[in-house]
Amino acid sequence: MTEKKKTTIVLFSGDYDKAMAAYIIANGAAAYDHEVTIFHTFWGLNALRKDQQVPVKKGFLEKMFGKMMPRGADKMGISKMNFAGMGPKMIKHVINKHNAMTLPQLIDMAQELEVNLVACTMTMDLLGLQQEELLEKIEYAGVAAYLGEAEDGNVNLFI
Amino acid sequence: MTEKKKTTIVLFSGDYDKAMAAYIIANGAAAYDHEVTIFHTFWGLNALRKDQQVPVKKGFLEKMFGKMMPRGADKMGISKMNFAGMGPKMIKHVINKHNAMTLPQLIDMAQELEVNLVACTMTMDLLGLQQEELLEKIEYAGVAAYLGEAEDGNVNLFI
Amino acid sequence: MTEKKKTTIVLFSGDYDKAMAAYIIANGAAAYDHEVTIFHTFWGLNALRKDQQVPVKKGFLEKMFGKMMPRGADKMGISKMNFAGMGPKMIKHVINKHNAMTLPQLIDMAQELEVNLVACTMTMDLLGLQQEELLEKIEYAGVAAYLGEAEDGNVNLFI
Repeated sequence: MTEKKKTTIVLFSGDYDKAMAAYIIANGAAAYDHEVTIFHTFWGLNALRKDQQVPVKKGFLEKMFGKMMPRGADKMGISKMNFAGMGPKMIKHVINKHNAMTLPQLIDMAQELEVNLVACTMTMDLLGLQQEELLEKIEYAGVAAYLGEAEDGNVNLFI
Repeated sequence: MTEKKKTTIVLFSGDYDKAMAAYIIANGAAAYDHEVTIFHTFWGLNALRKDQQVPVKKGFLEKMFGKMMPRGADKMGISKMNFAGMGPKMIKHVINKHNAMTLPQLIDMAQELEVNLVACTMTMDLLGLQQEELLEKIEYAGVAAYLGEAEDGNVNLFI
Repeated sequence: MTEKKKTTIVLFSGDYDKAMAAYIIANGAAAYDHEVTIFHTFWGLNALRKDQQVPVKKGFLEKMFGKMMPRGADKMGISKMNFAGMGPKMIKHVINKHNAMTLPQLIDMAQELEVNLVACTMTMDLLGLQQEELLEKIEYAGVAAYLGEAEDGNVNLFI
């Protein structure tokens, strides 16, 4: 019996387009029968936020971070060419036109393909994000768990 | 007979300095007899554009993207410190002064060293780029081909 | 005897938060007994600068670069959400509140854990940085040395 190949992605970026790239590679790898993990840290955690506000108790600074960061994948901005604010809209328009998948659709697909979506607990703590605010079926872990996966990984990327 | 080592780089970024880093690593790896692939996706595709306009038929949105994105490696901006617009100029000045290679020279060298320069067809489609607009001797492929290379890669990077 | 696992990180970015991520992964890997190298190139070199000015002879352009780039880890900006300039302050405030480590503390720890901190000589030359301006106990090397490490690496990242 041969072991499954492994793909492990650290998603650090909170940009819509970079997160798209991460999820396209992840879903591709899962389709090729890799065991795939996306480890969301820092701004990448925003891709996992629910799009509605969740009533949780927070300090002032955590509330502020919570307000200033995009609430979920659909609200994320793009990395380049804001095009006077038209950037994310244009990208989404183009995605629809070409029958490609939006970021929220890519995330749904990843969950169907059993990609392990992990939220970094240390940076959740820093940014004041709580489990209730993130999507269902997310795993919670730290850098040790990431390294445990990555050290046997065939494809390791930091995005 | 030992197999060749493999280096596989996803070039997502459209920044001059990040693309330089990608090509310096790629050319170094090729010089050390690695089999090297640079998979250009999203804004990284701009590094492969011809610097003159190519007459192709496009829709409105694709034309707009085409105009707003840099036409070729030499026109790309830098990731940090735009220095009131002086950034790319300063970098190029400094490169010349130190007898280092500019990005277009690094790309030429990569082609001489037989680095596989691949353009991601899915994002070409999204951004409305056509094969006629890109450099000669480019390969065209999707995420499956990338993963096929990367899963046996010794050095895999996302830039 | 089994060989040590290897983690090799290219730190290209000059952002405080990205450098934090790089050093958190590096220190984690060192704690799990990996042999770890961080290869600092381009703006990532700023993380290694001493925080005081060092009197060295420089040309005009090198002086200018030297002034415009952050002098050491503590002065680096963050990649996203400058929050009207509050970004780095907020992050540091939040780090203190949660008893997490600041970037300079993470770098100290990396040196205690014997992480190899390497400065890329080619980009030092480009940016006009001299060895006297960087921290003690740094190694100096080029892309060949990086590839020598990375081709046997278990975890290779570009940050």
